[in-house]
Amino acid sequence: MSKRIAVILSGCGHKDGSEITEAVSTLIALSETGASYEVFAPDTTLAVNDPMTSNPTGELRNVLTESARIARGQIRPLSALQVSEFDALALPGGFGAALNLCTWAREGAACSVNFEVDRVLNDFYQAEKPIGAICIAPALVARVLGKKGITVTIGNDRDTAAEIVKTGAVHENCAVDDFVSDREHRVVTTPAYMYGEAKPFEVFTGVRKAMRELVEMA
Amino acid sequence: MSKRIAVILSGCGHKDGSEITEAVSTLIALSETGASYEVFAPDTTLAVNDPMTSNPTGELRNVLTESARIARGQIRPLSALQVSEFDALALPGGFGAALNLCTWAREGAACSVNFEVDRVLNDFYQAEKPIGAICIAPALVARVLGKKGITVTIGNDRDTAAEIVKTGAVHENCAVDDFVSDREHRVVTTPAYMYGEAKPFEVFTGVRKAMRELVEMA
Repeated sequence: MSKRIAVILSGCGHKDGSEITEAVSTLIALSETGASYEVFAPDTTLAVNDPMTSNPTGELRNVLTESARIARGQIRPLSALQVSEFDALALPGGFGAALNLCTWAREGAACSVNFEVDRVLNDFYQAEKPIGAICIAPALVARVLGKKGITVTIGNDRDTAAEIVKTGAVHENCAVDDFVSDREHRVVTTPAYMYGEAKPFEVFTGVRKAMRELVEMA
Repeated sequence: MSKRIAVILSGCGHKDGSEITEAVSTLIALSETGASYEVFAPDTTLAVNDPMTSNPTGELRNVLTESARIARGQIRPLSALQVSEFDALALPGGFGAALNLCTWAREGAACSVNFEVDRVLNDFYQAEKPIGAICIAPALVARVLGKKGITVTIGNDRDTAAEIVKTGAVHENCAVDDFVSDREHRVVTTPAYMYGEAKPFEVFTGVRKAMRELVEMA
């Protein structure tokens, strides 16, 4: 039977949601392996940032509804995600991961984490089912599971890496088109647009490798 | 020197914007070839449709700003697109192509076309620079250039194909992971999510082949 992967999104696009190239690369790569996937997002509110200026617009949108723009309407609220239905978990990055799934963008290693995200990460870890995380999402995984001594990468950004170490996690540098696999703790990570000038094909290559490893471990 | 490709987006995601998997597949595939690209969108208003229910929400958004969510903020208004700066043109599909670039979704072959889109398509055609179009965007290209006798595909949907023939264009059936190339008129098309149940990797495969052909012709 094909592996079943749960994917968590956090809105739609640059400056306040899931990074779109990372999210799509995840779904392309998973479907290439023959795995099936289902997409989830929290049914919460996000504050809109203008994708060209980065400035807050004052507008509010729903994280689940905006995520459905990427998922072609095929999405369920994160509260419905049951670990027993899946073999692995994947979290694309982007500002949404650090603004809407947790408050890392403002508070770093001391950040709070959305209740459902915290539950799901702990459930997958305890069930010994692998977790894949992209871009800044490894910081969120470290915030929840760092005390287990997991190893992750967010590329080569020193400040973010230093913040991740505060969670108890180990940070390993990594190129954009590669990934880091902690097979002991079943955590796979790839830096993607933590390299802000990366080209879409480089991001796709790193995500594709990470997703192949995730599915292999699942 | 690497080929320079202009990409036109039409909003962000399911039910009222550029189809996100198609748009990202376009950018991944172009960057894989070594081509450079720049993204454009009309600075106009779109009516929001809920991506889960398809219902209009009554909200209005800006097409250029929403497209910037996909383009990571690197985008210019379509009015700034000059054919002399580029070697080829690419148009991803989605509801945005048939709602915001023209009115095909409501009026078929008799639809009106955004003034800038019409200008750009005619300019590229007259300059003998190739045009690539994905999903429903080939219908828009047919609306503008059908009288030249171009050949396009939107997959195997009989009603849409019959509508396209009314423009003067020729329609050729095509599988989701393949493309149709009219080398005489320099038009490359691939059906993508005109097959609504297609998997992301199938869409990516078709778009990737079409973009390789586009860059080769450019």
